[in-house]
Amino acid sequence: MNLGVCYFPEHWPRERWETDIEAMAEAGLEYVRMAEFSWAAIEPERGEFDFEWLDEVVDLIGEYDMQAVLCTPTATPPKWLVDEHPEIRQETFDGTTLEFGSRRHYCFNSDAFREETDRIISEMAGRYADNPAVAGWQTDNEFGCHETVRCYCDDCEAAFREWVAEKYNSIEDLNESWGNRFWSQQYNAFDEIDAPGPTPDGHHPARLLEYARFSSDSVVDYNAFQADLLREIDADWFVTHNFMGHFSDLNAFDVSDDLEMVAWDSYPTGFVQEMSPEEPTVDELRAGNPDQLGLNHDLYRSARDRPFWVMEQQPGDINWPAQGTQPADGAMRLWAHHASAHGADGIVYFRWQRCLEGQEQYHAGLRKQDGSPDRGYHDATQAADELAAIGGEDGVDHVDAPVALLFDYDSCWALEEQPHAPDFDYWQLLESFHGALRARGVQVDVVPPTNDLEGYDAVVAPALHLVTDEITTRLEEYVEAGGELLLGPRTGVKDAYNKLRPALQPGPLTDLVGATVEQHDTLPERIETVVSPVDGDDSYGFRTWAEWLEADDADPLFTYEMDGIEDGHTAAVRNSVGDGTVVYCGVWPDADLADELVRPLLARADVDYTERLPDGLRINHRDGRTWVTNFTSDAYRLETGDDTDWLVGDSTIDAFDVAVADDDLSDEFGVEPLE
Amino acid sequence: MNLGVCYFPEHWPRERWETDIEAMAEAGLEYVRMAEFSWAAIEPERGEFDFEWLDEVVDLIGEYDMQAVLCTPTATPPKWLVDEHPEIRQETFDGTTLEFGSRRHYCFNSDAFREETDRIISEMAGRYADNPAVAGWQTDNEFGCHETVRCYCDDCEAAFREWVAEKYNSIEDLNESWGNRFWSQQYNAFDEIDAPGPTPDGHHPARLLEYARFSSDSVVDYNAFQADLLREIDADWFVTHNFMGHFSDLNAFDVSDDLEMVAWDSYPTGFVQEMSPEEPTVDELRAGNPDQLGLNHDLYRSARDRPFWVMEQQPGDINWPAQGTQPADGAMRLWAHHASAHGADGIVYFRWQRCLEGQEQYHAGLRKQDGSPDRGYHDATQAADELAAIGGEDGVDHVDAPVALLFDYDSCWALEEQPHAPDFDYWQLLESFHGALRARGVQVDVVPPTNDLEGYDAVVAPALHLVTDEITTRLEEYVEAGGELLLGPRTGVKDAYNKLRPALQPGPLTDLVGATVEQHDTLPERIETVVSPVDGDDSYGFRTWAEWLEADDADPLFTYEMDGIEDGHTAAVRNSVGDGTVVYCGVWPDADLADELVRPLLARADVDYTERLPDGLRINHRDGRTWVTNFTSDAYRLETGDDTDWLVGDSTIDAFDVAVADDDLSDEFGVEPLE
Amino acid sequence: MNLGVCYFPEHWPRERWETDIEAMAEAGLEYVRMAEFSWAAIEPERGEFDFEWLDEVVDLIGEYDMQAVLCTPTATPPKWLVDEHPEIRQETFDGTTLEFGSRRHYCFNSDAFREETDRIISEMAGRYADNPAVAGWQTDNEFGCHETVRCYCDDCEAAFREWVAEKYNSIEDLNESWGNRFWSQQYNAFDEIDAPGPTPDGHHPARLLEYARFSSDSVVDYNAFQADLLREIDADWFVTHNFMGHFSDLNAFDVSDDLEMVAWDSYPTGFVQEMSPEEPTVDELRAGNPDQLGLNHDLYRSARDRPFWVMEQQPGDINWPAQGTQPADGAMRLWAHHASAHGADGIVYFRWQRCLEGQEQYHAGLRKQDGSPDRGYHDATQAADELAAIGGEDGVDHVDAPVALLFDYDSCWALEEQPHAPDFDYWQLLESFHGALRARGVQVDVVPPTNDLEGYDAVVAPALHLVTDEITTRLEEYVEAGGELLLGPRTGVKDAYNKLRPALQPGPLTDLVGATVEQHDTLPERIETVVSPVDGDDSYGFRTWAEWLEADDADPLFTYEMDGIEDGHTAAVRNSVGDGTVVYCGVWPDADLADELVRPLLARADVDYTERLPDGLRINHRDGRTWVTNFTSDAYRLETGDDTDWLVGDSTIDAFDVAVADDDLSDEFGVEPLE
Repeated sequence: MNLGVCYFPEHWPRERWETDIEAMAEAGLEYVRMAEFSWAAIEPERGEFDFEWLDEVVDLIGEYDMQAVLCTPTATPPKWLVDEHPEIRQETFDGTTLEFGSRRHYCFNSDAFREETDRIISEMAGRYADNPAVAGWQTDNEFGCHETVRCYCDDCEAAFREWVAEKYNSIEDLNESWGNRFWSQQYNAFDEIDAPGPTPDGHHPARLLEYARFSSDSVVDYNAFQADLLREIDADWFVTHNFMGHFSDLNAFDVSDDLEMVAWDSYPTGFVQEMSPEEPTVDELRAGNPDQLGLNHDLYRSARDRPFWVMEQQPGDINWPAQGTQPADGAMRLWAHHASAHGADGIVYFRWQRCLEGQEQYHAGLRKQDGSPDRGYHDATQAADELAAIGGEDGVDHVDAPVALLFDYDSCWALEEQPHAPDFDYWQLLESFHGALRARGVQVDVVPPTNDLEGYDAVVAPALHLVTDEITTRLEEYVEAGGELLLGPRTGVKDAYNKLRPALQPGPLTDLVGATVEQHDTLPERIETVVSPVDGDDSYGFRTWAEWLEADDADPLFTYEMDGIEDGHTAAVRNSVGDGTVVYCGVWPDADLADELVRPLLARADVDYTERLPDGLRINHRDGRTWVTNFTSDAYRLETGDDTDWLVGDSTIDAFDVAVADDDLSDEFGVEPLE
Repeated sequence: MNLGVCYFPEHWPRERWETDIEAMAEAGLEYVRMAEFSWAAIEPERGEFDFEWLDEVVDLIGEYDMQAVLCTPTATPPKWLVDEHPEIRQETFDGTTLEFGSRRHYCFNSDAFREETDRIISEMAGRYADNPAVAGWQTDNEFGCHETVRCYCDDCEAAFREWVAEKYNSIEDLNESWGNRFWSQQYNAFDEIDAPGPTPDGHHPARLLEYARFSSDSVVDYNAFQADLLREIDADWFVTHNFMGHFSDLNAFDVSDDLEMVAWDSYPTGFVQEMSPEEPTVDELRAGNPDQLGLNHDLYRSARDRPFWVMEQQPGDINWPAQGTQPADGAMRLWAHHASAHGADGIVYFRWQRCLEGQEQYHAGLRKQDGSPDRGYHDATQAADELAAIGGEDGVDHVDAPVALLFDYDSCWALEEQPHAPDFDYWQLLESFHGALRARGVQVDVVPPTNDLEGYDAVVAPALHLVTDEITTRLEEYVEAGGELLLGPRTGVKDAYNKLRPALQPGPLTDLVGATVEQHDTLPERIETVVSPVDGDDSYGFRTWAEWLEADDADPLFTYEMDGIEDGHTAAVRNSVGDGTVVYCGVWPDADLADELVRPLLARADVDYTERLPDGLRINHRDGRTWVTNFTSDAYRLETGDDTDWLVGDSTIDAFDVAVADDDLSDEFGVEPLE
Repeated sequence: MNLGVCYFPEHWPRERWETDIEAMAEAGLEYVRMAEFSWAAIEPERGEFDFEWLDEVVDLIGEYDMQAVLCTPTATPPKWLVDEHPEIRQETFDGTTLEFGSRRHYCFNSDAFREETDRIISEMAGRYADNPAVAGWQTDNEFGCHETVRCYCDDCEAAFREWVAEKYNSIEDLNESWGNRFWSQQYNAFDEIDAPGPTPDGHHPARLLEYARFSSDSVVDYNAFQADLLREIDADWFVTHNFMGHFSDLNAFDVSDDLEMVAWDSYPTGFVQEMSPEEPTVDELRAGNPDQLGLNHDLYRSARDRPFWVMEQQPGDINWPAQGTQPADGAMRLWAHHASAHGADGIVYFRWQRCLEGQEQYHAGLRKQDGSPDRGYHDATQAADELAAIGGEDGVDHVDAPVALLFDYDSCWALEEQPHAPDFDYWQLLESFHGALRARGVQVDVVPPTNDLEGYDAVVAPALHLVTDEITTRLEEYVEAGGELLLGPRTGVKDAYNKLRPALQPGPLTDLVGATVEQHDTLPERIETVVSPVDGDDSYGFRTWAEWLEADDADPLFTYEMDGIEDGHTAAVRNSVGDGTVVYCGVWPDADLADELVRPLLARADVDYTERLPDGLRINHRDGRTWVTNFTSDAYRLETGDDTDWLVGDSTIDAFDVAVADDDLSDEFGVEPLE
């Protein structure tokens, strides 16, 4: 387990550097990430390079037995470069050119910027080739931040035309695949196809989906270009990138194919404010939501099926959400353990010291603006000690997840382009199922539907909206061979081009599911909506979306119990196929209903699970250890048997506290609130 | 009574066509509307026409004893045309050019597009001239949809200059008429006048009103151009256009002058979400609001004082409102009866089958995406049977409305440009009065103030904001001759150029009203606001707007009963003029107060009316029949006398049900809830 | 005391002028403001001037023993001028050029417009030089209205480059001062610096602050250009400008340096709707909030430390807020007294008569549209009589304020650019402290931190965000010498360039405060947040912002009493320095807590104060008189001792009423509600 910190030596006087680096080493940090926005410091004018400052800092880092993670500084092309090549700037959907003055103002499809990228990386990487104090590289920084994956400039338009020309055999093939007969949208040549822009009504969903894929591919290609350059220069470096949380526009699986290691940037109190379905609780404002974080941990771990890094870990209060809440006491330690529990191999705090200048002055660091330690520094030091101890001699390795959650960027994009209801959000729908699994202490891989599924005891696909024949076959084979599959609403709606099929939902999955969707409905949140099990009287809530199922081979599981048109219709079914089972749930379940779906699934799949854990308290298993993380202000007593070997803490877990046992605790695990 | 369906044969394989048309005929449908977005299917490249597909479908329609309603496909100029003539594109108020990629991207004042229109219509109409399977034509599709009446491109600017130059004798005349001394807004020449665009503060209200008139006139002229072309080719066709609901930007009366038949597109569950003053109830989400629909039915029927068509009738769930709610059981039948009761002669469901591609995949059809019947198909079939039976041998003809509601587009535009309060909406104000009449079972014509009024027993004008001398005379003569007139707040405020007069409101109507408006007031919704009758203690609520009246010849009817400055002021007056009476109400009445205004009006005018009907349950009279339509989930018993001859249903009316009697029931009619 | 009215003779027929002016004189008005939007009336075509109408009106004004206040008509350049010089138009942040069609469409940095300004002022002022009927001039009208201080056109970009080049020694100096190392934002030359525009993420705060300063300076310079022109032509005229309320973008202190007299435009029912932290009460909708108005009165009085004018006083209902509420009976009189009580020397009602044309038809005047007196006319007449009587022979002069409230535009701009929380508003924070002083009957000057403070018994600085060494020294000297200082949250955060210092807050003020800010926090409004005095059990609420203080020399005053991380931390401290005291409060206090801070401050400073007055009832002292103004619908009995000499009213004050005593009542003053 490696802890580190992000550092901007170029912001601070030279005499400060050794003091800082010494303090980092004392805190138990091992990695220092640098230079992601340093282009102008390295090349203040075209061709005039200044590496002295970075050389000195890298040397110091080596002297203190740490290693640098360097970044390509391409997220911030300097003013002189933008003035020389104004054509590299991004253009928004509505035609606005984005100016110099913040970051990420370049277009991924600019040839000019590709050349500049080549130049700066060659210089920079060449400088540090074979330097043992440099562990690896981060490409750029947070690709797509500030909605920059999708650019609409002339270069992108030209590239999009090439992209479609390469994908489709002919313009007739494209027209047919997209369904361009609708509203006379046929093209006569690839050259007629524009980047989308303002129109009287919404755009064709096929065109939007292809533009989303093209845009993601453009970033994938740009990242590969950087990664290849770096590896050509020194094949021993790792190359990574720091993805963002709950980020839709970029296919992280595709980018990860060109990385040795996946990393992401975790800001719990920001995510919980910006990406939650409801107003966050005070506890969440103080520490975030463990499952919201966990979903991202699981996604980025699964992207290469190996330990990932948190490349930026929130160090205290942050500047970008509505409320810059101060984290709970111990939250910065809690997050490090929680990430580690989910399979992280490195946690790098962002940033060393609160910045005195520029856009991020109201973003804390481990040290305050005067250099004195801030709350996060103490937390980080404690976490470093504890994680080092837990790791033992060989470190903590793989997370074995018995359950796969299918995450499909195409489905996500298609659902965003044609929103089904004001509160229909793909990420939140995934969280409903992921959270139910996590509340039962189950480890989850988050993988694309194209992944090999045979190793998983159960597979959950909350809204597998676009389904191809290949995915159909894969799922059929999985279940036939004894797999347990749980499907959610809006599965099997579209083909690969975002078109409906001339068949009822779930289209090609109909045989597998043993039922079809006869009709669907949405109602505003203020209307109470419930279902009941066919063999019981309980009622369970759902939200946002309701499908009426017509069971064929399948058995009804839940029916609607509401006044009006849904009453008595089937809401969920179960079907036996080969040696496995498929459950299809046509509603977006609340937490109780999700548990009613997940618990039997785990039982059928013979996956160990715990009693249902309180919100905010979670356990994770990794390589023989068990982490208990408490994201609440309540204290709990953990029931684990007498002989538990506690590596951190013990069976009394305080507010926002952590306990780590050298055992797998899931069988006998229980929780009791303390007063 | 004619039922029909909208069909897009160009979206479906040739082998499907006959199956579809046969199923339409079986359902009792008689008309098939087609081709409104088919330009690219008809003319895939400039000058290369392909009519084969349409020929074949028209032939099939004829073979099954149905008739086609064809549409000019001008709402969707194809990409090759837009690329050849980029100048035809619309420009928004803020200067954004609207691109190809949806529909309605052309400007009504483009000479180039006028030529293209001539070309495509001549080709297409020439093809089907004298074809007995073609009943008539729809011009274009939903003029103005997606806010496209008002374009701000260079062609429009030039046309606007010509339009004002034609209207005004001189630039001095224009300056004086508009009141351009204000803020130094005088022009020295017509050429100085621009299309409106972004400015630091709001625009001059006279300029905005003239731009609204000019824009509406531009569409009127473009429609006339199409209609004339069609009639030149075959004088036996009817020419119609499908207007939209609660649509302000286009003067439907003016457009209708060039149509044989008026049609509109009715989407009850969408309107109730987008155009209601309050959050819709669950019943409204399932079936819409009958009076909101009825106001549009009445408007479009009155536009030519003859039966109209619903050219697009909602067939099930729809894609454009926030919630794509599933309609109640029977709603699609209910809407057909309700339209018929209001004077519709044709109801055409939109669309035959759920579309597999493009922007409207989440819009239901009568058939599901796999071709199987959807809920609307069964409803439509039942409605077709019932309406055919009701019609008898000679059909159902005219609606005789004893009351006229004055709808004035100029007033609507003036009030939109200078909103009087955040919730001051002209349509909603009209609904308050229209709904009160409908709750008493009274049939209402919705006509412009320039109409001949002498045939009406009573006239209601909720906010006749702009009043000319001609309108004044017309109203004076109407009342003198014994007419009963009810005026609402904000009447008589402006002259024809959107200027105040140097006289107190109601300006030229002061003698008629016998009172002036001394002052006015608005308060937010959260403040309770009430008035009381001068001869009683009851209190009645009002909203949004309060005028303090000073009665001269008139008698006070209601006074404000509130703490503070309004207390004791007069809120409404009644004046006897010649043989008639005028009531002026200075507040926007709630439903109870509106009933207190409407009931005495009907009594004075000797108009039959019922007891006050429950919300959502309505009766209509047409040509000797009475329709009872129930837009609620409650069942009712209808009290109608023993010998009622029920053509559809009977005196027990279920949730969302219909009953039709072969009598005029208004005298003895009563309603009791069941259970 | 001078009352007046705004008049637009160019809107009305010549035969009306004398009637109007006679009626003004009869009402006791003494000044007539004119011509601020009259450019096109004066110069209908280039070089063709028409002064006849204005000559005649000015003569009439003189004949009736009144005086004209003329305005330069530069706020409305006519269409012919804009067409000749389209480059004078403003450009918005997003690059939109603002068209002719309202007002304020010119850029302050346009050389072409400077020339036109010179031309029109020279003509106009030359015409009226030495005319005894002209008392003075108002420059332009409401500089910055409709967000026009900050323009982003090419002229502004060029001027900004000159402005920074003048301010900074070198580009290196600028880079260092701004902190441009952050995100590679260094420049290599002044010519590289652009006006801000759309960027992917937010702008650099130093650049934004400098652009705010530059923009304000551009207006200051333009105003000085006008004022100099006017004074060159006739040195006896006063030159004034009418500022706006709660207006941030323009530094009114700087502009006022070039004015003889400061004026502002007061619209109580508009401000209370647009600028209040909470939904206004009905009383506030009827009369506004006296402290919100008072803060502006105090600011503009203090700007030159002499009586100011209200150049536009709301006369009745107004058109621009959401609700055009009708003011309470007497409100127009109440506002005149309240302004006078705060030090006004002139109150000019806007406008004489409701306008018949253009954008402001729904804005009342003292006369209705038909010329008859409106409610405001009676109020104004009464106020004129009463204020004339109060003034006695020598008039009422200076307001002696014992307390200074520091208002810092730099801090305001910096806090707006980097909002600390969704509801963090600098003006509202100032109101919290200002209102607490006013609730104790204390007169307050509102001055910049660069002012001389030695005359004040106490100084209150709610959020002195940017602190320079000079301000530090000034405050230290003030307290050392016995001054009483109360500082609010977010004080001492930034340096002069909007950068953090490498020191804990309050930075250079740390010695003075005797404490540092260890950490800060924000929480949403829905979370209850409280503090308690260290020596007591009461709890007091706060909002929006919480700082945790670490007392060094200072004594803790309040601590947080909340569950969680703040609990027990210090929220406010008191420090003795020399002969004075400093209190630093780290939270935004609610009204009760603000009173707990203000009352001891006044006691220590030996300032007279009253019992805590009810919301909406206020007293003011000016030159030996005491005004009591009641902005509520409740009546009160005033306890003032038996021998009070009432100049207006008496000890029973009705709803929205006024009482004026010829005494200083603060000592013995008390208030009791009536019934």
